[in-house]
Amino acid sequence: MSASKSAPARPSGRKPDEMRPVVLEVAGVSKYAEGACLAQFGDTHVLCLASVENRVPPWLRNRNMGWVTVEYGMLPRATNDRQRREAVFGKQTGRTQEIQRLIGRSLRAVVDLPALGERQIVIDCDVLQADGSTRTTAITGAWVALYQAVGGLRERGLIKTDIIRDHVAAVSCGIYRGQPVLDLDYAEDSMADADGNFVMTGAGGWVEIQSTAEKAVFSDAQFATLLQLAHKGMADLIALQKQAIG
Amino acid sequence: MSASKSAPARPSGRKPDEMRPVVLEVAGVSKYAEGACLAQFGDTHVLCLASVENRVPPWLRNRNMGWVTVEYGMLPRATNDRQRREAVFGKQTGRTQEIQRLIGRSLRAVVDLPALGERQIVIDCDVLQADGSTRTTAITGAWVALYQAVGGLRERGLIKTDIIRDHVAAVSCGIYRGQPVLDLDYAEDSMADADGNFVMTGAGGWVEIQSTAEKAVFSDAQFATLLQLAHKGMADLIALQKQAIG
Amino acid sequence: MSASKSAPARPSGRKPDEMRPVVLEVAGVSKYAEGACLAQFGDTHVLCLASVENRVPPWLRNRNMGWVTVEYGMLPRATNDRQRREAVFGKQTGRTQEIQRLIGRSLRAVVDLPALGERQIVIDCDVLQADGSTRTTAITGAWVALYQAVGGLRERGLIKTDIIRDHVAAVSCGIYRGQPVLDLDYAEDSMADADGNFVMTGAGGWVEIQSTAEKAVFSDAQFATLLQLAHKGMADLIALQKQAIG
Amino acid sequence: MSASKSAPARPSGRKPDEMRPVVLEVAGVSKYAEGACLAQFGDTHVLCLASVENRVPPWLRNRNMGWVTVEYGMLPRATNDRQRREAVFGKQTGRTQEIQRLIGRSLRAVVDLPALGERQIVIDCDVLQADGSTRTTAITGAWVALYQAVGGLRERGLIKTDIIRDHVAAVSCGIYRGQPVLDLDYAEDSMADADGNFVMTGAGGWVEIQSTAEKAVFSDAQFATLLQLAHKGMADLIALQKQAIG
Amino acid sequence: MSASKSAPARPSGRKPDEMRPVVLEVAGVSKYAEGACLAQFGDTHVLCLASVENRVPPWLRNRNMGWVTVEYGMLPRATNDRQRREAVFGKQTGRTQEIQRLIGRSLRAVVDLPALGERQIVIDCDVLQADGSTRTTAITGAWVALYQAVGGLRERGLIKTDIIRDHVAAVSCGIYRGQPVLDLDYAEDSMADADGNFVMTGAGGWVEIQSTAEKAVFSDAQFATLLQLAHKGMADLIALQKQAIG
Amino acid sequence: MSASKSAPARPSGRKPDEMRPVVLEVAGVSKYAEGACLAQFGDTHVLCLASVENRVPPWLRNRNMGWVTVEYGMLPRATNDRQRREAVFGKQTGRTQEIQRLIGRSLRAVVDLPALGERQIVIDCDVLQADGSTRTTAITGAWVALYQAVGGLRERGLIKTDIIRDHVAAVSCGIYRGQPVLDLDYAEDSMADADGNFVMTGAGGWVEIQSTAEKAVFSDAQFATLLQLAHKGMADLIALQKQAIG
Repeated sequence: MSASKSAPARPSGRKPDEMRPVVLEVAGVSKYAEGACLAQFGDTHVLCLASVENRVPPWLRNRNMGWVTVEYGMLPRATNDRQRREAVFGKQTGRTQEIQRLIGRSLRAVVDLPALGERQIVIDCDVLQADGSTRTTAITGAWVALYQAVGGLRERGLIKTDIIRDHVAAVSCGIYRGQPVLDLDYAEDSMADADGNFVMTGAGGWVEIQSTAEKAVFSDAQFATLLQLAHKGMADLIALQKQAIG
Repeated sequence: MSASKSAPARPSGRKPDEMRPVVLEVAGVSKYAEGACLAQFGDTHVLCLASVENRVPPWLRNRNMGWVTVEYGMLPRATNDRQRREAVFGKQTGRTQEIQRLIGRSLRAVVDLPALGERQIVIDCDVLQADGSTRTTAITGAWVALYQAVGGLRERGLIKTDIIRDHVAAVSCGIYRGQPVLDLDYAEDSMADADGNFVMTGAGGWVEIQSTAEKAVFSDAQFATLLQLAHKGMADLIALQKQAIG
Repeated sequence: MSASKSAPARPSGRKPDEMRPVVLEVAGVSKYAEGACLAQFGDTHVLCLASVENRVPPWLRNRNMGWVTVEYGMLPRATNDRQRREAVFGKQTGRTQEIQRLIGRSLRAVVDLPALGERQIVIDCDVLQADGSTRTTAITGAWVALYQAVGGLRERGLIKTDIIRDHVAAVSCGIYRGQPVLDLDYAEDSMADADGNFVMTGAGGWVEIQSTAEKAVFSDAQFATLLQLAHKGMADLIALQKQAIG
Repeated sequence: MSASKSAPARPSGRKPDEMRPVVLEVAGVSKYAEGACLAQFGDTHVLCLASVENRVPPWLRNRNMGWVTVEYGMLPRATNDRQRREAVFGKQTGRTQEIQRLIGRSLRAVVDLPALGERQIVIDCDVLQADGSTRTTAITGAWVALYQAVGGLRERGLIKTDIIRDHVAAVSCGIYRGQPVLDLDYAEDSMADADGNFVMTGAGGWVEIQSTAEKAVFSDAQFATLLQLAHKGMADLIALQKQAIG
Repeated sequence: MSASKSAPARPSGRKPDEMRPVVLEVAGVSKYAEGACLAQFGDTHVLCLASVENRVPPWLRNRNMGWVTVEYGMLPRATNDRQRREAVFGKQTGRTQEIQRLIGRSLRAVVDLPALGERQIVIDCDVLQADGSTRTTAITGAWVALYQAVGGLRERGLIKTDIIRDHVAAVSCGIYRGQPVLDLDYAEDSMADADGNFVMTGAGGWVEIQSTAEKAVFSDAQFATLLQLAHKGMADLIALQKQAIG
Repeated sequence: MSASKSAPARPSGRKPDEMRPVVLEVAGVSKYAEGACLAQFGDTHVLCLASVENRVPPWLRNRNMGWVTVEYGMLPRATNDRQRREAVFGKQTGRTQEIQRLIGRSLRAVVDLPALGERQIVIDCDVLQADGSTRTTAITGAWVALYQAVGGLRERGLIKTDIIRDHVAAVSCGIYRGQPVLDLDYAEDSMADADGNFVMTGAGGWVEIQSTAEKAVFSDAQFATLLQLAHKGMADLIALQKQAIG
């Protein structure tokens, strides 16, 4: 895919298929967690901390397998307008639950849960600052934190095999002023005709595809372009994950 | 797409691209609601009732537009094993919220909200019996209920223009034992390698695409087949919607 | 009791001691439930589904007896004006809890709970459409669903004796424009001076009597008439229950 | 009704138609409330405090009438075994809601709500100690607190007419070891075959009748005896209310 | 500390270092509780009831020690303006939780928890009437109730040693119109520049000190005076506790 | 106060009156907030973000004054053992509420609320990593964020006067192995005989004093030493605040 010269400018000046600077910081991120990654897609910053627990949820007891789950949160002033604190409101919003379910599903797709044993790994993804695409940032960082936590279990001899079968990362793509673009920031996201989240393994298998018409329905052709953009973004992210865990 | 003779049999004996019998019942469904459709995809039965309210949610006041929203519920024994009643548990599950958000988004994609005026139409989608694909059944039926409710407003002269721009319907597709199939029932859904929900307008524009790897990641090629199946299923559903509102 | 010719007309044109058409539908009502009855008193429709669970509530464990409990719900648009969905509001109203406690008590009055063994039968009574007297409709239908569920346990040899000692059914009676009437519909209920619910066994023993002055207190004599009307209504209901389970 | 000499003794040694000592204390009960009564039926002690508020509930605004409502609570150790504190549990039980709805209905039956003006009187009925029949004790005391609060409004010239049309009081009756008895204490209540609550005006009109089979169904004849006992108990209570407000 | 003649008068006419009349009533306070004290500091009345439970909270199981905990509540009309009932609101306020945590900590400071065995003593402190300083009244009364409950355990031979090491009581002190005063009533509390709560053992050791600037910060010197006032008040309270348990 | 050479070593090797390294970072901390400070007392890191809202809480409307309030939270894995996420649990713990009430009170003590106008400033204090003394770290950082937010209002001409009257900062002091120490870290806090939080203005006035016996009661003399340590720590903190806002 190539962006024509006459394409409408992205607010950030990026090219249509250009991601924001991505940083997957691991050193010094947490004094306590078994795995930790501060994932940054531009000004979107998500702290991903993995905790290993020696028990599984009640509904999974005595089934000889482990579990990986995710909790997602956003600091009230991570955004331009302060949001209500969910702990004060008394429950997580539907949006929050939808996101944490997506991240959890994405990670479990590459984990050998029976080989994990009767353990649960909880990944807390907390958005310290939000500038669009928090869920794809979280997935990409959460995989790094998970990888570290599993590595720690292997070092301690608690698991024997390589229970993480592949990388998982995610990018957003959308149609902004008629132009398909990669990795939407907030200025684009809030104006997009359509946007989507694309979750993929290192080997290029799809884990999850979600696309939504926001201002206009989209055609098969447009959607095909989004899929191509996603493939391109993924290659960068997998490379950065490899560096982070290297 | 054609199903090869050697393809694994579907539990129901259907062909890969064959939907279950679909009924969109409207007569005698409700004594009170402004729009009503009992949508049935095989043994999945969803009662969709539309209520017109002369007010909008607080966050939309004084903005000269209306709103369409959806609440989704499932009777505790709509399924083979009784589920906990959400009203007793004290909140809707994440799954419920995710589904009702999807249905609402899908309907709003074809409604001219400013032309609706400061009104809200609430569609209650209650699953009386579930055999897989409740959300696609609900979307397909909810559109019919919405259409009736809007028709009533026009008859009473409260709105002047045709504020529903197009049909919206939905089908599920998935990969069952390696075979892409249309309209999954519960037996297939619980065993699928991957499944997805596809929401489309009458004119063939995509409103929402969601696909998830359940047991195995899926390739671009497999996904393309799912999209084709979805196109095929949509044609049938739009025809049935036309009959229902005829 | 005889209705004088000069008595004020009931909105439905019924005679004072005339019930609405009652249907206790059992065939094809549920694909899954162990007992099922769609009970209809005129336009009041209550779906009663029985679920057998191989455990009892925590407070009853290890006491060598079973339990029968009821959950009651009403679809938001079962009524002329849409009601708030309890799952969204986050709790059941006081009215809902009062009703489900009444139905549960009524059923347990005729069940030999120790002979049921350490099992619980949950009856979900969901009002699909409401036109007054939903609780008496629910009691009458719930008994049928319970009877079927218990019958299934006997067929499978899990219980040995006839653990349901008698029928239980219920009717409402009230004073409408000074006239005692049987089986109030919504038009009457909302205008009644007094109304009450009467729960009785097949042998004519009282299980529960509840009467409330709504617009005017009532005398011993008026109350005696209500009791007579209730006796009359019960005879019809017991006969219909016998047909339904025949 | 006369108790035969051979009737089974009541645990308290009372005659079948004998109430416990009843005290309706008003002096020095509250430093703040607009109406106050510490109602005692034997060892059941209920503090009833009336608060006058210059607003009505939202659903009653601009309808030119007032409201009387009741909240009921029980101290956790009012009973022999400590109960869970509802404020900690996070909601009122179904039993609590049922009781406060009953008390509120009973009081409203004798109040001219339009003449009250756009005011709400809230009666808090808190059980300090419980020995059976807390709801009838609460109704009897709440009426006294309500009467005082209304008297205060008249003294201040805020209402002109006598808006309380009559007394309301309540007693329980039940069948204990086959013997109909008046005013059940806890020892009787927990063993009764059937019990009921009877709410009546000073003029002898019924406001509410509730009777429930606990261990055995009851006949028309038995129920008639309960009604007679209730009439007898009411006479005493009305006399005591007159003294309390004298 | 001496109050100068020209000091501003306290609303009650008390001297700066004069407590209100304190009554620690124990006889006839509760028919059921293992320990009971109706503590009165002037018009502040707190009912303190101790319940012994043969289990500990889940997080303390199998650790060979007991626990003492406190729940605090206030009747809605204990105050001049009616407060919302926490059970209706659905949760305890932050203030309530803060107070019950303080009372619990204060009591546990003098109890030999391992010697209590795997038991929990719950003290319910319910404010029947409030005129300032409810938390210090509650602490002082709760200790008496706790002492009685522990005495009962010793009498029944369930514990062998004297597990309550010392008295605990509490007073408030504050700065009212520039004047340090002891035991604030509501009129003073609502106008104080600063106030504090002081919890002390019989031997004069501090258990808890809390002081807050309400209208003005306070100096080291002022704070030293508050500490002196607290010492003085404590002497009276310990003497009254000794009488109460004598 | 001087630490004798033979005093028990602090786990960190600090001298008794030595604080941990304190950093009050302001640059680049938040892209959005009107005031921001990442406060670090050693390994305790609290992100303090101020949001200005053009409305006050409902109970303060039309009273010609503003409000400053605080919400406190802790990331689930800020600590060595993962804590339950409050948004999932459905409410804030008592500890959380107590802390945010303390921080809010402390800040309001130095703000001229009427001069703020009908505005609310909300400070979110979120603990990213915890190693003891999170509430004193939060108070110290929250003041900086508040100062910035107020400065922004002045720059925009929305307020005219200097509405922050003084600095506010806080330190913890406690008795660790018999030795009074300044600024407890977690290793000390979890073993302390007594600990306390001390909140003071720049001019040396006390805003709040809280001290609690954890393992042993404390004497007047010990408490006097804690006050001295607090004075010493405060001097450092005020200096650092001045640098941060310089």
